[in-house]
Amino acid sequence: MVDLDTHEIINAASGKIKADIILSGGEVVNVYTRELIKADVVITKGRIVHVGLLSIDFEDTETEVIDVSGSIICPGLIESHIHIESSMLTLTEFAKAVIPHGTTTVVIDPHELVNITGKKGLELLISEASKSPITFLIELPSCVPSLPGFETSGAVLSAEEISELIKQKEIFALAEMMNYPGVINGFGDVVNKINSAKEAGKMIEGHAPLLSGKELQTYIAAGISSDHEATSVDEALEKLRLGMKLQLREGSFAKDLQNILSKLDLNKIDSRHLLIASDDRNPIDLFEKGHLDYSYKKMINLDIKPIEALQMMTINTATHLGLQNQIGGIAPGKKADIVVVNNLYDFDISLVISNGKIIFRNGELIIPVERAEYPSFIFNTLANLETPSFDDLVIKSDKEKVVVRVIGIQENSLITEKIQHTVNVKDGVLLPDIEKDILPVFVVNRHTKEKKVGKGFVKGLGLKNSAIASTVAHDSHQLICTGTDYNLILAAIKQLKESQGGQVIVTPEKTTLLQLDFAGIMSSLPLKEVVGQFKILTKSLDELKPSISEPFMALAFIALPVIPHLKITDHGLIDVDNLQIINPIISE
Amino acid sequence: MVDLDTHEIINAASGKIKADIILSGGEVVNVYTRELIKADVVITKGRIVHVGLLSIDFEDTETEVIDVSGSIICPGLIESHIHIESSMLTLTEFAKAVIPHGTTTVVIDPHELVNITGKKGLELLISEASKSPITFLIELPSCVPSLPGFETSGAVLSAEEISELIKQKEIFALAEMMNYPGVINGFGDVVNKINSAKEAGKMIEGHAPLLSGKELQTYIAAGISSDHEATSVDEALEKLRLGMKLQLREGSFAKDLQNILSKLDLNKIDSRHLLIASDDRNPIDLFEKGHLDYSYKKMINLDIKPIEALQMMTINTATHLGLQNQIGGIAPGKKADIVVVNNLYDFDISLVISNGKIIFRNGELIIPVERAEYPSFIFNTLANLETPSFDDLVIKSDKEKVVVRVIGIQENSLITEKIQHTVNVKDGVLLPDIEKDILPVFVVNRHTKEKKVGKGFVKGLGLKNSAIASTVAHDSHQLICTGTDYNLILAAIKQLKESQGGQVIVTPEKTTLLQLDFAGIMSSLPLKEVVGQFKILTKSLDELKPSISEPFMALAFIALPVIPHLKITDHGLIDVDNLQIINPIISE
Repeated sequence: MVDLDTHEIINAASGKIKADIILSGGEVVNVYTRELIKADVVITKGRIVHVGLLSIDFEDTETEVIDVSGSIICPGLIESHIHIESSMLTLTEFAKAVIPHGTTTVVIDPHELVNITGKKGLELLISEASKSPITFLIELPSCVPSLPGFETSGAVLSAEEISELIKQKEIFALAEMMNYPGVINGFGDVVNKINSAKEAGKMIEGHAPLLSGKELQTYIAAGISSDHEATSVDEALEKLRLGMKLQLREGSFAKDLQNILSKLDLNKIDSRHLLIASDDRNPIDLFEKGHLDYSYKKMINLDIKPIEALQMMTINTATHLGLQNQIGGIAPGKKADIVVVNNLYDFDISLVISNGKIIFRNGELIIPVERAEYPSFIFNTLANLETPSFDDLVIKSDKEKVVVRVIGIQENSLITEKIQHTVNVKDGVLLPDIEKDILPVFVVNRHTKEKKVGKGFVKGLGLKNSAIASTVAHDSHQLICTGTDYNLILAAIKQLKESQGGQVIVTPEKTTLLQLDFAGIMSSLPLKEVVGQFKILTKSLDELKPSISEPFMALAFIALPVIPHLKITDHGLIDVDNLQIINPIISE
Repeated sequence: MVDLDTHEIINAASGKIKADIILSGGEVVNVYTRELIKADVVITKGRIVHVGLLSIDFEDTETEVIDVSGSIICPGLIESHIHIESSMLTLTEFAKAVIPHGTTTVVIDPHELVNITGKKGLELLISEASKSPITFLIELPSCVPSLPGFETSGAVLSAEEISELIKQKEIFALAEMMNYPGVINGFGDVVNKINSAKEAGKMIEGHAPLLSGKELQTYIAAGISSDHEATSVDEALEKLRLGMKLQLREGSFAKDLQNILSKLDLNKIDSRHLLIASDDRNPIDLFEKGHLDYSYKKMINLDIKPIEALQMMTINTATHLGLQNQIGGIAPGKKADIVVVNNLYDFDISLVISNGKIIFRNGELIIPVERAEYPSFIFNTLANLETPSFDDLVIKSDKEKVVVRVIGIQENSLITEKIQHTVNVKDGVLLPDIEKDILPVFVVNRHTKEKKVGKGFVKGLGLKNSAIASTVAHDSHQLICTGTDYNLILAAIKQLKESQGGQVIVTPEKTTLLQLDFAGIMSSLPLKEVVGQFKILTKSLDELKPSISEPFMALAFIALPVIPHLKITDHGLIDVDNLQIINPIISE
């Protein structure tokens, strides 16, 4: 946050030192009173110092006076919760991607990166954020790994480590407390994490999908103040009524904003505790749709009043964050985070100012051109992985046929089915049953030198004569792979080892790669190039005619052992309901 | 603030430990959504742990289940700004006075007491507050004395002392920054005080009467977030639009709430930044009208929607104070500060709960009966005053007539006129001109052993054959006195010395005293007895048929040298416009 000297700001506001920028002739969105008011805005040294119809005395030959007649001046938009890893972009490139869409503050939970790289990755992010032209508020992931003892994660944040890290001034809050059963049941280390945050005076953000009644109330009473998981208007209302800040989610995967807002009567319900969150945003959506500006337009289409909609991504969020005296509105003393748009319906953004600096103007980013520099570890997160041999990989049996457990993927759901199927064995190796879409799936440890491969079968992808592999696999982001042929699978693994991460499709004819060199889940390239690779990968995928629309997304989530029913980690098949590691072979 | 163990609150909310109180069958005012919702409220160990239609499992033979069917359950009311000294009650008696009116949190600026007793008085208050059944948030007076160098105050809080005191955890914020010229002009010590508060992470409250335009914006930009001085809707709107929290004032002296609210269209203006403040509240008003409940009823008469009105004295204030996760609403985890009323129109209060304890029920206070104990210094704040002799007091001249400067009092205004008048001299002593209502006025130092008497003349009180004296005299609260006869004045001074403070009327026939033994400005008695004395004093005063309705109030404010034009302190007559001590005699 800015911390201008009080003397300086007094001098600036009283016009004793020259203004840097004057936005002249526009109308200001007043999120405090919900009005649109004709006013000039004076910016000096990173702050808004005057908002009003201007007398001449702020002007100076050195002041840049920008005529915004006919335009609307809004506060910079605030993203209340996102995992930027979902964009596959580095923080620096993410900033470049969202600035043209009016975002000036982003609350991030770097949950994925920290699961892979631990404190080192967190420090890297803090350092990168400190150099960003926009503001990133970095939260401390609360649940790393997701299920201790059932997976090899790249890092573990113990309750003790959290109690130290949460004190750092660069850490804004404790990120979404996903372990809601742990909260409700008062598990010792979960309570310790909560207490550490309270003692450090930091907020605790929530994650309480479908939680209701006494369990929800217990979760809230423990001190958790927000939620972005509500998927129905009833769930939203229950949470709002219990005092939660409700982060309406408009992500690439989960889209709850329209469903909830279309059913909430804002003439009856106070909207002050509604915020907007992306949670996840893939590169294609960022590129083609935008960011909060897209959510805003969606809200306008739902007939939400424009300024009320803007409050949900400005002052409401700032107030939730305890930063209402710093950001979220156009008023003297506030950080000069400003977006100029043509009108409140098209919301075409012509100018973005962050921290008093013009960073986007008439379609062009105006920020320092240098690329961020990163330490080498971040590009070598598959260094420990040794490509398994054929013998390491396959599941063996001396029977002719065996009954195996199969992870049943369902379209548009993170929940999997437990299926049983009989597969043939040839030369002691269990075979895929391609006709029935029963394919082997493997999770290969990349975080430690220990050779570990979790083995199982999966149904529902519908691949033909191909293999796919990915190092995006929640939450530990091991290498996960599947395919119709072991050699194709081995080739896919090899390719990812070479490229130090990514998503790959291997067929007998060709190999198509989206390289994710940054921790194996993000790219060091800019948005446009990532989108280019992403589209080529998508095209290759379409050629395979899989049974579901997003095979890589499905693959990413069958590795997450906290969502029912059957999942897979490098430790093996996980029976989530009984929290057990189980053998893929039921009977021989 | 409560700080229940997280484990305990989880157990309480999940019903694993017995509830203390269940409010059953009522409707809850939901200040988060602006709804009235049928729900039971479960209270355990000082906190609200459940809000909803109840299953049986919270109940227990040890739980007190209170049937509030047909009643409304509101959050406890929050006073956003008051000088409790105006009530003439000690903090303990003030609490008893306001609890029946539903007040459970009071933000106080002990400006008067600290001007008299300095840090000792502040510590006393902090200690007394810590034992109160309701919550007092104590702010640190920012301007003690009001005008250094022009008065002998009982204490001085230097910028250095403020920088130490503001760090104390018992100090909630820096109280109203009255020295707005000092802020606007960037005076060194004023800026230092502001910086100390910012460094300590404490809020800075405002006081900006009639401030507008660039000056107001400079004041706000310096970091001041609230104001309770707006007297017109235009002033209120300007401040709201600039992001200030606007404390609508309904005091005994200044009444701005109706004037402003009757002209604000809350269908168009977001009310989230409107709060309610008393600023001052005299004992009669407390006794006969009430506190925030009275303001609430006034708002209902103005057709403000009931829950929106309640938001202004609950969640809006809590949010301004940064305590929205602690107080201001009925939700799990919040402090159990609750008021039960018959309906939202009469607002008859039947039950008040603070911190989970029932403190008022069916007309009776239910709080510990012991009176607060105070150290002796607080009852001896006139110990240094030596009653002046006739010769010490009077103004002398060897002329027959002299032209003198006269403080011209105007009804209902703190601003005085500069008047000139010719008075007679007899035996070398300047005489009153009773026919023309020109009376001598004196300010006698009571804070140090130094004999100091400020001398002048006053017009506008219209006293007949009497003297009045008072140790309530802003902000230093010296002894101020006036009258038609020097011997009556001397007798009045003597009486106040004997009683260690108060307000007294002396006529040849009788002496009527309101004793203010506590620092000379408050009484150690309960409200009812103070009101009794107050009424007797008022009756005596009425018999004198003064020209204005509140002579003691007028007297109290002609001692305040920061309001134009001519004032008097123990240093002498003060020309406020030119900041000079001037001779009462113009020419001889």
